[in-house]
Amino acid sequence: MYLALTGGVGGAKLALGLAHVLSPDELVFMANTGDDFSHFGLHICPDLDTLMYTLCGEANPDSGWGRQSETWQFMGALRAFGGEDWFKLGDRDLATHLVRTQRLNEGATLTEVTRDLCRHLGIEHEVYPMSDDPVPTIVETADGELPFQHYFVRDRCAPSVTGFRFDGIETARPSEPIMQLVSEGRIDGVVICPSNPFVSVDPMLHLPGMRGALEASGAPVVAVSPIVGGRAIKGPTAKMMRELRLPTTAVEVARHYGGLLDGFVLDACDQHLVAEIEAMGCRAIATQSVMVTLEDRIGLARDTLKFLETFK
Amino acid sequence: MYLALTGGVGGAKLALGLAHVLSPDELVFMANTGDDFSHFGLHICPDLDTLMYTLCGEANPDSGWGRQSETWQFMGALRAFGGEDWFKLGDRDLATHLVRTQRLNEGATLTEVTRDLCRHLGIEHEVYPMSDDPVPTIVETADGELPFQHYFVRDRCAPSVTGFRFDGIETARPSEPIMQLVSEGRIDGVVICPSNPFVSVDPMLHLPGMRGALEASGAPVVAVSPIVGGRAIKGPTAKMMRELRLPTTAVEVARHYGGLLDGFVLDACDQHLVAEIEAMGCRAIATQSVMVTLEDRIGLARDTLKFLETFK
Repeated sequence: MYLALTGGVGGAKLALGLAHVLSPDELVFMANTGDDFSHFGLHICPDLDTLMYTLCGEANPDSGWGRQSETWQFMGALRAFGGEDWFKLGDRDLATHLVRTQRLNEGATLTEVTRDLCRHLGIEHEVYPMSDDPVPTIVETADGELPFQHYFVRDRCAPSVTGFRFDGIETARPSEPIMQLVSEGRIDGVVICPSNPFVSVDPMLHLPGMRGALEASGAPVVAVSPIVGGRAIKGPTAKMMRELRLPTTAVEVARHYGGLLDGFVLDACDQHLVAEIEAMGCRAIATQSVMVTLEDRIGLARDTLKFLETFK
Repeated sequence: MYLALTGGVGGAKLALGLAHVLSPDELVFMANTGDDFSHFGLHICPDLDTLMYTLCGEANPDSGWGRQSETWQFMGALRAFGGEDWFKLGDRDLATHLVRTQRLNEGATLTEVTRDLCRHLGIEHEVYPMSDDPVPTIVETADGELPFQHYFVRDRCAPSVTGFRFDGIETARPSEPIMQLVSEGRIDGVVICPSNPFVSVDPMLHLPGMRGALEASGAPVVAVSPIVGGRAIKGPTAKMMRELRLPTTAVEVARHYGGLLDGFVLDACDQHLVAEIEAMGCRAIATQSVMVTLEDRIGLARDTLKFLETFK
């Protein structure tokens, strides 16, 4: 069984590819919830939702987030009230947040609610939030601290980043079902999807015991680079690296994950970086990693899994 | 200045008529909030919303509740999740609840939020919730206690009613702006709109100090009967009266309000009840009170106000 760690849009693309190649018995997902936030009293999980909508074919193909065939009557009425409209909530998307909020208010865990939402969406693979405890990502910027969605959506990643904080992570418990699979030696390989290392993957790896459990399990860990040709396919990864005065290269991403990694998947255009990464003690391959079509997603999934097989 | 006390659909019809006849300097509204409830984490005020939507011409003319030109994408998605769909939340209506919930969570009072919502809806008359404190109506039935909306909407008023309770009313503070107008002698007359006496009007009158302040002010109080020809135009008033073993007549409504009333407005078809009501020490008139058109609403408002004038 394989474990895939993923954030939002970019990671979800590979997640879909993996779900096409591996059965629900062979693959489980763990999603970042550091970007969860409360808005209008609703519990919103943007990364988790993007993963769910992507896996069930409900994702909006144009925006990358939200639901397809979405309508915006709510947002129009909200604007007429002068309501905060920086976070776009589609009419159909709202149902996800309201059902989740109600279930959480009734005492269910995010793991339980997510399982239920996935079942209704027809998703057969297990999708686990990284934790049932809130671990809100705080973006430290030159202008002060910002909750993640305020930085990411409201301020369009404009503030210059100086660091990140995951509020409450010291006492947060990592996903119990995932920790159990890992500790029982049932995970044969781990894929870190091409998500933002700082705000999508780090919250998962920094959960108490998570990184240590993965390392102790002996399962090979392979990450797919979100940086291609020195740029991020989607999102602020490259911009963050510049602001943190890090080289904006795939090598730096591999360095960021450090000793956890057994292998690293580069894009074909970064073939010349293979040697540099392997010098760090981490094997690397270069392949077509820009995912435009479903075939691209499946192709990258196959290449990544084939690479993982070589570590056995 | 006149004060109109109102619940939902029936009361809101007369409220609209009054708003056509009297300027914002001459008329203020106080609405029942005993039917407020929390659903999916949202603070929903059905009576208040019906009043607001009615006053700004946004009310759905067919259902009597909700917004016109409403869409139901959210409800469709909610059903797909197996979510609770007994309370219909339109896509546009949701904006009202989310803005209200957010503002309340930020610490605003319901009075402040309502003023803001009304302003954005273009309502010029002041609309006051009866209290900023929650006073949830509990319906006591043969099958046990039910929160009001569960009784009213989910169970379609099917359970047999044995009584009512307004949770927390002992310590709830009645609307401060209304109490101030009343105590300063600025209210020249009070209209109790044709709303359900038990679950729409009683919560307002039972607020600590409210009834006493109205009586002490000396302003004449006139109620319009929600019972016409022994039946309720809309809603469960007559059914409740039967279950409470009360005669289902307009006379009984007048008796219910008791000494508070100076006058009572009957429908023309109940002309024969005038003498019986006047024998109770309360003057009565009979007029066309069934409101189908806007002209009906304005006509009843004029008749009611003319009647109120006779008490000066």
